[in-house]
Amino acid sequence: MTTSLVPESVYLSRISRAQEEMARTSVDALILSLGQDMPYLTGYLAMPLERLTMLVLPKNGKASLIIPQLEAPRVQQMPNVFTLVPWGETEDPVRIAHTLLGNAQSIAVGDQMWSRFLVDLLQHRPESHYVRSVVVMEALRSRKDIAEIEALVAAGAAADRVAAQLQGGLIPLVGRTEAEVSADISARLIAEGHQKVNFAIVAAGENAASPHHHPGDRVIRHGDIVLCDFGGTMNGYCSDITRCVHLGEPPADIAQAYSVLLEAQAAGVNAGHVGTTCENVDAVTRAIIDKAGYGEYFVHRTGHGIGMEEHEDPYMVSGNTTLIAPGHAYSVEPGIYVPGKWGMRLEDIVVATADGPVAVNNANHQLVVLEQ
Amino acid sequence: MTTSLVPESVYLSRISRAQEEMARTSVDALILSLGQDMPYLTGYLAMPLERLTMLVLPKNGKASLIIPQLEAPRVQQMPNVFTLVPWGETEDPVRIAHTLLGNAQSIAVGDQMWSRFLVDLLQHRPESHYVRSVVVMEALRSRKDIAEIEALVAAGAAADRVAAQLQGGLIPLVGRTEAEVSADISARLIAEGHQKVNFAIVAAGENAASPHHHPGDRVIRHGDIVLCDFGGTMNGYCSDITRCVHLGEPPADIAQAYSVLLEAQAAGVNAGHVGTTCENVDAVTRAIIDKAGYGEYFVHRTGHGIGMEEHEDPYMVSGNTTLIAPGHAYSVEPGIYVPGKWGMRLEDIVVATADGPVAVNNANHQLVVLEQ
Repeated sequence: MTTSLVPESVYLSRISRAQEEMARTSVDALILSLGQDMPYLTGYLAMPLERLTMLVLPKNGKASLIIPQLEAPRVQQMPNVFTLVPWGETEDPVRIAHTLLGNAQSIAVGDQMWSRFLVDLLQHRPESHYVRSVVVMEALRSRKDIAEIEALVAAGAAADRVAAQLQGGLIPLVGRTEAEVSADISARLIAEGHQKVNFAIVAAGENAASPHHHPGDRVIRHGDIVLCDFGGTMNGYCSDITRCVHLGEPPADIAQAYSVLLEAQAAGVNAGHVGTTCENVDAVTRAIIDKAGYGEYFVHRTGHGIGMEEHEDPYMVSGNTTLIAPGHAYSVEPGIYVPGKWGMRLEDIVVATADGPVAVNNANHQLVVLEQ
Repeated sequence: MTTSLVPESVYLSRISRAQEEMARTSVDALILSLGQDMPYLTGYLAMPLERLTMLVLPKNGKASLIIPQLEAPRVQQMPNVFTLVPWGETEDPVRIAHTLLGNAQSIAVGDQMWSRFLVDLLQHRPESHYVRSVVVMEALRSRKDIAEIEALVAAGAAADRVAAQLQGGLIPLVGRTEAEVSADISARLIAEGHQKVNFAIVAAGENAASPHHHPGDRVIRHGDIVLCDFGGTMNGYCSDITRCVHLGEPPADIAQAYSVLLEAQAAGVNAGHVGTTCENVDAVTRAIIDKAGYGEYFVHRTGHGIGMEEHEDPYMVSGNTTLIAPGHAYSVEPGIYVPGKWGMRLEDIVVATADGPVAVNNANHQLVVLEQ
């Protein structure tokens, strides 16, 4: 059993707020499984297995946590927050959920719940109306409270320390493979206080043009730009940072593009004032990159919300008219990717406050040149 | 980009067999995302993120791989196997899937696809009929071919070597926490050839009574039984083994229960002859444990299929009348768990062959006594 760091009163308050949101959005019941909505409400993280774990929260009344009998000992029981409903190996847990759902018509479904359970539920309840859990949960989870912001700041500071090690030349690059450097960064994230590494992208030279490159056998050489994008989970909250270094003096095209990227990223961070739209944060970075002639090479949105998950609402993307509000936490990470040649990205996590945006990450934003 | 170890001809053959199964089961289209069905058919593993990656395979014609534009460079393209359909950041990928699905009525949905995408698809296609992908895929994936069996045997041998290190006293236990021993076992799984550790349960004394115990701060002491259940992925296929050791001579109740467990597990392994039911494998182990009076303490099924995933069809559980067939690979892992006192489990992976069951794991099956 993992003991929760969060007091029971916080869970009770969150469940009560979720039920208020359900009333506001005409949702009769919320069903959650994998992902962080369930731990946000109960402290319990489901195992990603074929045996169903599901929280059923009706719009009125108490939540039930359906759980495989053999996993019940893992749960920190909080009888005021939820009733434990263990099921045996020969029972059908979806039928139990169906029964608990009673005459609910509109059901909000956890984003990351495996589809197999929803497919099974559809057989039981073909007439119900299904919506995404974000309808209920975004209003809660996207606005971080003080304890959550403190956790994000601490995780960000730990990631900054690893970035400083990279920029200080403490992480050998030349002659190692991307995969080796990725493993090294991962170990350092743990050493700096993360419990879990979520990803450590290391992409050298032409590989940096693939934004989600999988670090491989490519050996890093003098003359490469090396893009490092890494993050982990520390006390339940995520870090995420991207810095690039250049091995030897960068050629003019890279230096010029980086100066544009630096300007665009800083402008994106500064754009995050309460009341502006999320899509405006995206528009601000994109306008600068477009104007400099690199628009076609910026192939992704500007950022994503972050908290208990690396990627969560709100997203900084064209079409998202959500207004930035105090407590929103998100990445600002424009990039420029020239296929077959090189790529670059610069990323900080930002928290919106009434006094303006505050960057969680403070590692050097320049394209640091390393001689190795 | 990760280069596939599997030749293109194998993917073509698997897709053709999937389409035969679709015809047989009256499925018009198969949609896959997370999980191993998609890599089984295409070599590409989707990233577990909010941007949709989806394979759409119609019952006739070619597969399409819908992928975020920024992840497209990760894909090893095989134009004979699938058409790549990249989508940009402001497009709706579920609408693209909906269009590709055309007039399909019966749609088989990947088990592990995030529900958010199915919820969105339901808005587009409320009249379609949805079934689980196992309807199509179980017949393919549960019967391993020679190359797959070789990979399972190699992964099992690597796990055996770590078990032998445990049993040989090479992994210090007394005075360390469960979490420290779990990290040690994880490092050894990698050192023995796994690319990825999937889990390393270490449960001491009373904690061993929780079958899916999360290794924590409990310090291991002389007099403890220590249950270690671990596995990883090696060249795409999984290992999974459980062994218990006892620190000092076990008391009579533990020794007696273990002799029952040993007999039950061996009988379960030997029961796996072609043509017997999966539920019979469960019944064989359970009968022995029941008869010895421990029935109430055996709270889970006897086993699960294994391959590209740790848990997959077929399951050795009451109610599963699937007949064991050559190429089936699965665990046999009965356990006895006395709440608050102790627990024990013994697990091997078994491959069914025409000549009878063959255990992949050969590490010592006894309750090894360690003096530390």
